[in-house]
Amino acid sequence: MFYWLFQILEGYGVPGARLMDYISVRFGATLVLSLIISTIIGRKIIDRLQMMQVGEIVRNLGLEGQMKKTGTPTMGGIIIIISILVPCLLIGNLSNVYMILLLISTIWLGGIGFLDDYIKVSRKNKEGLNGRFKIVGQIGIGLIVGLTMMFSPDIVIRENQEVTHYNEENGQELIYEIVYDNNEVKTPATTIPFVKNNNFNYAWLTEWTGKNAYTWGWILFIFVTIFIVTATSNGANLTDGLDGLATGTSAIIGVALAAMAYLGGNVIYSSYLNIMYIPSSSEMVVYMGAFIGSLIGFLWYNAYPAQVFMGDTGSLTLGGIIAVFAVLIHKELMLPILCAIFYIEDLSVMIQVFWFKLTKRKYGTGKRVFKMTPLHHHFQKPAGVVEALWQNPKGAIPESKIVIRFWIIGILLAAVTFVTLKIR
Amino acid sequence: MFYWLFQILEGYGVPGARLMDYISVRFGATLVLSLIISTIIGRKIIDRLQMMQVGEIVRNLGLEGQMKKTGTPTMGGIIIIISILVPCLLIGNLSNVYMILLLISTIWLGGIGFLDDYIKVSRKNKEGLNGRFKIVGQIGIGLIVGLTMMFSPDIVIRENQEVTHYNEENGQELIYEIVYDNNEVKTPATTIPFVKNNNFNYAWLTEWTGKNAYTWGWILFIFVTIFIVTATSNGANLTDGLDGLATGTSAIIGVALAAMAYLGGNVIYSSYLNIMYIPSSSEMVVYMGAFIGSLIGFLWYNAYPAQVFMGDTGSLTLGGIIAVFAVLIHKELMLPILCAIFYIEDLSVMIQVFWFKLTKRKYGTGKRVFKMTPLHHHFQKPAGVVEALWQNPKGAIPESKIVIRFWIIGILLAAVTFVTLKIR
Repeated sequence: MFYWLFQILEGYGVPGARLMDYISVRFGATLVLSLIISTIIGRKIIDRLQMMQVGEIVRNLGLEGQMKKTGTPTMGGIIIIISILVPCLLIGNLSNVYMILLLISTIWLGGIGFLDDYIKVSRKNKEGLNGRFKIVGQIGIGLIVGLTMMFSPDIVIRENQEVTHYNEENGQELIYEIVYDNNEVKTPATTIPFVKNNNFNYAWLTEWTGKNAYTWGWILFIFVTIFIVTATSNGANLTDGLDGLATGTSAIIGVALAAMAYLGGNVIYSSYLNIMYIPSSSEMVVYMGAFIGSLIGFLWYNAYPAQVFMGDTGSLTLGGIIAVFAVLIHKELMLPILCAIFYIEDLSVMIQVFWFKLTKRKYGTGKRVFKMTPLHHHFQKPAGVVEALWQNPKGAIPESKIVIRFWIIGILLAAVTFVTLKIR
Repeated sequence: MFYWLFQILEGYGVPGARLMDYISVRFGATLVLSLIISTIIGRKIIDRLQMMQVGEIVRNLGLEGQMKKTGTPTMGGIIIIISILVPCLLIGNLSNVYMILLLISTIWLGGIGFLDDYIKVSRKNKEGLNGRFKIVGQIGIGLIVGLTMMFSPDIVIRENQEVTHYNEENGQELIYEIVYDNNEVKTPATTIPFVKNNNFNYAWLTEWTGKNAYTWGWILFIFVTIFIVTATSNGANLTDGLDGLATGTSAIIGVALAAMAYLGGNVIYSSYLNIMYIPSSSEMVVYMGAFIGSLIGFLWYNAYPAQVFMGDTGSLTLGGIIAVFAVLIHKELMLPILCAIFYIEDLSVMIQVFWFKLTKRKYGTGKRVFKMTPLHHHFQKPAGVVEALWQNPKGAIPESKIVIRFWIIGILLAAVTFVTLKIR
């Protein structure tokens, strides 16, 4: 709302008002503002949750220090959601289609997560919201985002092309540059490394459908969107098992996505990564400022030993936002690298269950691949082969150290994501 | 060295070789390489240090869990220094004056820190290197850097100027831009917020000396350099008292400095922050990649509970490098914000000693301002007023949480540093 105010002030020539035209300034503003808001309201909301006895029901997994967590309030995701929404409503450009979609996603996903937590806490029911309802919710937001991208006239891209100029005399490479197509097009294209110009079009996979290839490409894209939203959201949910793990990992992913959105939303800078130029998408950077800031602020209380857990209100929302954001900047196929931690946590559970059932049917007794899943709990259990690479083979790794090591891997993955776009 | 190889290959038109021209690519390369090197050699060096019984001598401060640290090997800074030097020697442009100065500083400061640790460990002498020798070392590197900047013809800047164009009809602001002076000048100028164009010249303070004002300005600049190197180096040294504290804080500062160097070394981007343009300084970003990567890799082992301490080999070097880097990109007067954690740790000790001596002389018994200094230990002690703002007023804050909270403050300070340059 202040954004419009500043626009009006700028019209009247008020000095300083033009600063709000800079995406970087508004990014800094939402970041600092949401960090401050989440630290301030955090304290109060935690006290209130504690008073209402909104405690996590902790199952005894036989992990060191794990039963100490009993009584720690959950649903702290409320802190994150408020600290995202308030700065965006104040400083964001609320007429930008990308900003609108992100705000809708935040509220939608937050609502589902909240319902889930609420049922768990009030009915003392560890299962929470009916799984079918949860999935319908995730498919719903995938549909909203996918269909808006397919039909909104505001969502267009300009494709990048590599051009090499040669020295006419000896044929040597002289100048190399990336230029942008002059036409803004609506096409189901996405950025992925190792293909020409890093551009991949879903319509390539549907060419066999003949003249309707592009429509089918869009439909394929919508299915991919739904799949990615669901997988990422559930991945973040599973990752949220150690103090600060999902919070820090999501913040790191947020920084990488913000950088990609910033570069992709600027016609000069986007050539730097050789990615498509997406007009007016840089507004999403402003949203990401609030996202990163609120997570850092939440970490103030969520760091080991945690005073509050985010609950599904937090984790389902974070994963969903990350997926929606990546889809909106056409980087959803980069997520298998960038969000590898989430997906590996997803996979570890699937592998464990699959192997256990298979060996049980074959040998009568079920065998396990990991000592415990989701994966992060595996490292908390003493002894084993995989830990030998991590630390003392004799001992389990302390919770605080596992978390920081997952963050380090997250940073490495973010760096690798950028590097892959540069390697040709 | 590979940088030259790639330059030759590029001359022969080998595809891919041109990639090494991008600062961003080489930044990514040094970052990933140093991260991998430090994690790999870390394990081996820690085992070796443990075998040689290079343990920290832990004084009993009566802090929770503190005596557990006995026997943890120190001098882990060796890991950091090797993981900085190797990637820079491989990927850096070794004919760039800034890169050379940074590598010299790393070796010089690492040498002093190593001597200090070596004396402490081998002679079981908690005092280490003679204080006078340590200060001479810090003054030495300040002199080397300051004098090189004063006399090297390769070190020049181009000053930024704000230009506003007005609508001729109604006098309203129309376009606002930042242009760069065409002349490369040698002048003791630095970037500081809240002055015109963010440019401050040390010669302004020495104008009263008449026609030699610029020479005196340079001399003043050299004194400032020495002071900043000493203060930052000692600040990092004092900050290194909790697991991962100095490591993480330095990495965050490193990211901010890398961003500033990147923007300042590019004539288009430097206008973004309205800072001076420093030709060929962007090579420093490549160095910073190695700096950040090695710290993140070191954190793998240094995170709470630490398997290794960096010792003075690490902390004196980190603080010194940060100061030298800031001086080279003419941002040394931004450090009071960016490195506030280091200086507050410095100050907490000074205030404590000063107040204790003053009250002792006046009342017979000395009184303390903090329960313990350096500041981070203060929060480990139970009960008190300041902690009420942090957590439970009854209890001390656990080490792992203090560390992450200091990191959060570091991130906030880095954001504020950038914001101040934009506010006018």
